[in-house]
Amino acid sequence: MAEQQADGVEADGVELDTTVLIEDPGPEVPTIAGTGSEEVARVAIVFEPSGKQVRTPVGVNVFDVASWNAIAVDSTCGGHGTCRKCRVQILEGEVPAGGVDARAFTEEEMQAGWRLACQATAWSDLRVQIPPLTTRPKASTVGVGRQVIHRPTVLKRFIELSEPSLTDQRPDLRRVMDAITDMASSADPMVLRSLPKVLRSADFQVTAVVVDDILVAVEAGDTSDRVFGIAYDLGTTTVVATLIDLTNGMPLSVSSMLNKQQRYGADVISRISATMLDPNALENLQGLAHETLDELTGEVCDEAGVNRSEVYQVAVAGNATMVQIALGIDPEPLGVAPFILAAEDYPDVKADELGIKVNTRARACLFPALGAYVGGDIVAGGLACGMDRDQRVRLFIDVGTNCEMILGNGEQLLATAAPAGPAFEAASIACGMRAAAGAIEIVRIDESGLHVECIDGAEAVGICGSGLVDAVAELVSVGLLDESGRFVSDERAHELAPHVADRLTMRGKERVFILTGDPVNGSGVYLSQRDVRELQFAKAAISTGWAILLEEFGIKEDDVQQVLLAGSFGSYLSPKNAIRIGLVPNIAASRVVSAGNVAGEGAKMALLSGSERNGAHSLLNVITYVELSDRADFNDRFVEELAFPIS
Amino acid sequence: MAEQQADGVEADGVELDTTVLIEDPGPEVPTIAGTGSEEVARVAIVFEPSGKQVRTPVGVNVFDVASWNAIAVDSTCGGHGTCRKCRVQILEGEVPAGGVDARAFTEEEMQAGWRLACQATAWSDLRVQIPPLTTRPKASTVGVGRQVIHRPTVLKRFIELSEPSLTDQRPDLRRVMDAITDMASSADPMVLRSLPKVLRSADFQVTAVVVDDILVAVEAGDTSDRVFGIAYDLGTTTVVATLIDLTNGMPLSVSSMLNKQQRYGADVISRISATMLDPNALENLQGLAHETLDELTGEVCDEAGVNRSEVYQVAVAGNATMVQIALGIDPEPLGVAPFILAAEDYPDVKADELGIKVNTRARACLFPALGAYVGGDIVAGGLACGMDRDQRVRLFIDVGTNCEMILGNGEQLLATAAPAGPAFEAASIACGMRAAAGAIEIVRIDESGLHVECIDGAEAVGICGSGLVDAVAELVSVGLLDESGRFVSDERAHELAPHVADRLTMRGKERVFILTGDPVNGSGVYLSQRDVRELQFAKAAISTGWAILLEEFGIKEDDVQQVLLAGSFGSYLSPKNAIRIGLVPNIAASRVVSAGNVAGEGAKMALLSGSERNGAHSLLNVITYVELSDRADFNDRFVEELAFPIS
Repeated sequence: MAEQQADGVEADGVELDTTVLIEDPGPEVPTIAGTGSEEVARVAIVFEPSGKQVRTPVGVNVFDVASWNAIAVDSTCGGHGTCRKCRVQILEGEVPAGGVDARAFTEEEMQAGWRLACQATAWSDLRVQIPPLTTRPKASTVGVGRQVIHRPTVLKRFIELSEPSLTDQRPDLRRVMDAITDMASSADPMVLRSLPKVLRSADFQVTAVVVDDILVAVEAGDTSDRVFGIAYDLGTTTVVATLIDLTNGMPLSVSSMLNKQQRYGADVISRISATMLDPNALENLQGLAHETLDELTGEVCDEAGVNRSEVYQVAVAGNATMVQIALGIDPEPLGVAPFILAAEDYPDVKADELGIKVNTRARACLFPALGAYVGGDIVAGGLACGMDRDQRVRLFIDVGTNCEMILGNGEQLLATAAPAGPAFEAASIACGMRAAAGAIEIVRIDESGLHVECIDGAEAVGICGSGLVDAVAELVSVGLLDESGRFVSDERAHELAPHVADRLTMRGKERVFILTGDPVNGSGVYLSQRDVRELQFAKAAISTGWAILLEEFGIKEDDVQQVLLAGSFGSYLSPKNAIRIGLVPNIAASRVVSAGNVAGEGAKMALLSGSERNGAHSLLNVITYVELSDRADFNDRFVEELAFPIS
Repeated sequence: MAEQQADGVEADGVELDTTVLIEDPGPEVPTIAGTGSEEVARVAIVFEPSGKQVRTPVGVNVFDVASWNAIAVDSTCGGHGTCRKCRVQILEGEVPAGGVDARAFTEEEMQAGWRLACQATAWSDLRVQIPPLTTRPKASTVGVGRQVIHRPTVLKRFIELSEPSLTDQRPDLRRVMDAITDMASSADPMVLRSLPKVLRSADFQVTAVVVDDILVAVEAGDTSDRVFGIAYDLGTTTVVATLIDLTNGMPLSVSSMLNKQQRYGADVISRISATMLDPNALENLQGLAHETLDELTGEVCDEAGVNRSEVYQVAVAGNATMVQIALGIDPEPLGVAPFILAAEDYPDVKADELGIKVNTRARACLFPALGAYVGGDIVAGGLACGMDRDQRVRLFIDVGTNCEMILGNGEQLLATAAPAGPAFEAASIACGMRAAAGAIEIVRIDESGLHVECIDGAEAVGICGSGLVDAVAELVSVGLLDESGRFVSDERAHELAPHVADRLTMRGKERVFILTGDPVNGSGVYLSQRDVRELQFAKAAISTGWAILLEEFGIKEDDVQQVLLAGSFGSYLSPKNAIRIGLVPNIAASRVVSAGNVAGEGAKMALLSGSERNGAHSLLNVITYVELSDRADFNDRFVEELAFPIS
């Protein structure tokens, strides 16, 4: 059935009634980005012919990785293995051919490395050849298995008008509107400024640009194949922009940079505090957000050879604080009880009001917020994960300083936010560092001892959030950390894990576990007792959050059919270790899925489809926000959750 | 019946279904501003207690003069003599008491000079005491006998909100919107910028400002009695601004100045030409329009003690060229055949886009245009004259360099524009000057000889348009100008008008008529043969225009029941002399009425009533524009119309 529908899109161009094909809610097998491996790792994929290299959690399929990184792959079914369009050639690395591949390729082709990208799971480093596009797709795969049929609200039409005469004195605007009555009902008055000159310079052969039923521009000649949009994920730490060709849904370039607001502190609370202490801070922070967004705009446009004026719409997903600051709205009430949003939903604003210099008439779509700490980024993420449609019981977790969660089954949806603190950003960790070259991101203890892997294979200089989770989980596994999170005695350590027990030692007055080098006498990376406590607080805040949501929902931990780990940190977290420390419900590791940068994916969806954009706004009505800070039982439960689960 | 309706407004506050009370279409007696006098003159009226002095055509009633000059007079019936609210005291000058006065006042009151302003026709100079307002009117009289019930689209409401708490985390905007669900359906996103601070600084006691169903501002405390709008008449020559208190419809101040674009030429064609020759001219002209509008804005606000930020809406009536230039839209296609408008109708634009610095969220209402030369000023004027409602056959003429006309009976309406040229502005006249101090504005020839009157009683230094019409009409009457417009021979002059025949002489090679002084040998003001020709061309263009409209309408000259002379020049024209030279149809002089600055009055109406504003837009659909320049018979008819009518 799914196959027929999908083929329908491709074969006869008949559009489907629904904009999304829901994957079958099979109870056991994760169909998307499942990290089924017992071993936790990241892999590097090099895409040819561009040579672009990306790092990704192991077990994600090549199609999703390409999509998240703005590398266009043919597809009409949305990664469900039915259209057989997403043909790629594996040049280096191993990808076993599956049954679907056997139906799509000859034996020779398979031997030459041809695979369907959506079936090609990256278990190891790969080099993949992406053929040029052969179709103008009518739909794109976005987020976690969401297929979006292209219905952007930006439309262009080339129109050839008759010239005015004394017997046809229709005003210029009327002449244009008469040619696009099926597309536009009104005109932005500012279109008029250049209209008389444009019409006459182009001999009345022009292209009308319509956004949301409103004529926003008239351009000389035929420019109908140049329609672009940019999706932004406006994060507190990192900002990502993706340029999309709205004629075919293809992402053309993606760029990211640190939010220039960093100098005002790493988290939203520091930035809100700044505005409370310094009367100029809000304006400065707003300016820095605008600079960040606009610099990225320049980068993605330059990379794709697109003129800024060809970008007619943008979508911005950000948390409530980032969005309010970017709009110049005082964020103070977000930072102090009772935590009040300026607005839960925004009408479109001019892109220019966010500092984004693209077409002067371009508007920016913003996402609604559920609460001061469950912002537009989470709504966008929920949209990208199909939280409103998938009928399985799923728990969406965006892990970060503030950790947002949505629990639901497509009908009933609950959301909350838990103050996890900076442990996952590794800011409060003795040897903590951002996830950059030299950061230990994987820690494994086996019979042969301790193994650490650093980002980019560089010399270890610190440890990032995913490494921290790994380290603590492994130490709990081998018994060097007890259930309460305390390092065991030296005697007990030698008893339980003699091959690594020597690494447990004192640094000054504090008990530490040495990861690399000799941090006691020289340099090296270690994990301290206090680091473990930091992580315990963070994970307890999060698990208290979802435990309360589960209770409100009336279900148990093992009723959860899928956990989606979202956000730049969450996506790189080891599912197995997240379960082991109790960060996520105790279910099969294969059901814990990396969801990628879902906020940015939600923003893309809003550009690709007006109905998806509306869907984001209607999510407001179906998700119930659960406030944790006024719950009498929160502190008791939090203390209970500090312990590590007994395996 | 009219009396009952009007009393209803006053007595029980029940609002009428219609926003306008049409005056009875009585066939003979002009009820409004009729200049029934055989003698043509202007009178001066001093209004006390302000001491404001205004000059006005003789025969206009005191109520209208006060209204046009932003002097508030109580009224609920709109100047129909039924509400008896518009009580004023004539301190100097003669105003005979009428029957309506006798019902409104005691004998003693009438002897003390008390009259109803709407019944008090100014036949001579007057000093009038205006009592303070006693009511908050629900309706205002605007334009020519139009009563507009106040339904401005700017509304304010003081709201006292509950403060947020952990159990009531409604976002700030939602909290406000919940209190005004009956007034507003959405919010300008920019309201949010200051919303959190305003709510908290004012302890959640705020005033919501709603324009057209959209929340545009939230102000601290109760500001609900401060709501203002400004109506602008954006003329090619003169720009007028009137500040209106939108809580009661009262005009508070009025100010006018020359359009600063004058340096680019006196008429629209010079200004359009400038933009064609000089690439910077459009931007410069736009800047000058903005400067003019904004300087007037400052003047009217200062005079009335109103802060610019308390002005939430403006309305601008201007001709198509003035409006396009003010918006920065290339006007070139207006100036060359086939004379094409950029748009016939504009949605509201931000006041700021016209250079008007008032409340940052204020929007400007613009009037639609019927053609390149029948612009928004004429539509506003037609609205103010009730051309869409009055069932009499009426001819509206706005006399100027370009002369616009509307002929209709409320059901069928025809409009056209005739290129009258600069004669009425006196720009092409040998001794011509603007209507300023020292300009001869009245010329009369009787048995005792020639009499001239100058504006402000100053020494004659030139002649303005109305003086020119008077002079030519009087010379035709006494026979010194023949039907063809040629000065008669000296012999014939002495035969026909011996008492002024000596004034007919030669100046250089040209035949002239001396008005003052000795212009042949020294200084003085005269009328030349060429001046007469200029006027003939102007009046022929106009009379050809209305003659064609009459023919299209299928009626004759004397079927016209009322002629409305509009515009700053038309209003000061002598009806008797306008008839004598054939500028208007040959009907009883009492049926030719000065209508005042009707474009500005239309702009006021748009501010006072949303339904009137919509009415302006729907006028577009009921008026048929008749293009003269492609009519084969235009030139023939024009030549016929050059002659003066034989009396």
